[in-house]
Amino acid sequence: MRSAGKGFFITLEGGEGAGKSTQHVHIVAWLEAHGKEVVEAREPGGTEVSEEIRQVLLDTRNAGLDSQAELLLLFAARAQLLQQVIRPALAAGKVVVSDRFTDASYAYQGGGRQLGVAAVAALEQFIHPDLQPDLTLLFDVPIKQGMQRVAGRGAADRFEIESIQFFERVRNTYLERAAAFPRRFRVIDAGQGQDQVWQQVQDILQGLPGL
Amino acid sequence: MRSAGKGFFITLEGGEGAGKSTQHVHIVAWLEAHGKEVVEAREPGGTEVSEEIRQVLLDTRNAGLDSQAELLLLFAARAQLLQQVIRPALAAGKVVVSDRFTDASYAYQGGGRQLGVAAVAALEQFIHPDLQPDLTLLFDVPIKQGMQRVAGRGAADRFEIESIQFFERVRNTYLERAAAFPRRFRVIDAGQGQDQVWQQVQDILQGLPGL
Repeated sequence: MRSAGKGFFITLEGGEGAGKSTQHVHIVAWLEAHGKEVVEAREPGGTEVSEEIRQVLLDTRNAGLDSQAELLLLFAARAQLLQQVIRPALAAGKVVVSDRFTDASYAYQGGGRQLGVAAVAALEQFIHPDLQPDLTLLFDVPIKQGMQRVAGRGAADRFEIESIQFFERVRNTYLERAAAFPRRFRVIDAGQGQDQVWQQVQDILQGLPGL
Repeated sequence: MRSAGKGFFITLEGGEGAGKSTQHVHIVAWLEAHGKEVVEAREPGGTEVSEEIRQVLLDTRNAGLDSQAELLLLFAARAQLLQQVIRPALAAGKVVVSDRFTDASYAYQGGGRQLGVAAVAALEQFIHPDLQPDLTLLFDVPIKQGMQRVAGRGAADRFEIESIQFFERVRNTYLERAAAFPRRFRVIDAGQGQDQVWQQVQDILQGLPGL
């Protein structure tokens, strides 16, 4: 927990079809019902500049996007979001709930695209050496189950058309990070139905001292 | 000089109003007249993705663009340009002439925006640890003279509306880099008229062994 007046930073992480978006809505509603001022974010995006960057990243026409360029664009969007949204909200004592943050870069670009941990760590050190989430909820779902859920959604974006091996690396990297940072990570079994997943999340939220 | 078959990489650097664009045209014409296959680049830009990034960077509506985000966007555009244009051209033995490259990030973001050398060096190390220009022409012009030239051009972009102090830091950083890397840098007195500047450039090109 952070000291009073410094806000609280919650990040939601996980692979495709893990149900993050649905749980995001529940979490925000729960926090507001408990009297918290909540600021929502979604990566990449959340500012005008970051949304422009998001369009470049998700565009399937950019299939030739270089992996290093992708990682740098994600951190550019993140730097802007931090400066414009996350840091001011935390400084004002609010709760920030972000759909993805730097752990996603470790998982997708460091692991999935195999750029490695060191490159991601250097960028993390550049833009937020001083800041980590207070709580990271990792919605973990077996790859095939997640992909079946996504398949029902219609047109796939540039990330969703990656291979099974890519998503296995993403998932493994997430789980490795959860094991490496047990203080802030909570792994949710997101293979269950939405109600059971929300029950798991709610138990975690209720157990947070001082939130 | 690089070994035969590895191409030759020329970068043009300098502040506002240094006359880089005019000289760029002369240099390319000279190289082609001497039988070289030339690939031209302009930073930020030169690929579809990089041009999209350029638009975000130069847009005066983005006056609130975070300095770190700016640096990361520049390196994202550069990574894409390297992968898609510069590396293939050099591998094919061509001469690449790029209007700006990483020295510009040292000068504008490291110096001008005061992000420091270490951040730029880390990004350089990430995307081109193995590659440096063979020749960097630094078109050096006193700040006031450069700004008077730019003032005649019409609407200023987001970089051109910076303060005199900003441009002094840019110029000083460029000159420091030229002093630190004398093997590849040549400083051109760009305060002279276009014909005299071109004469200086031509003397340098003619003196390059094996080009």
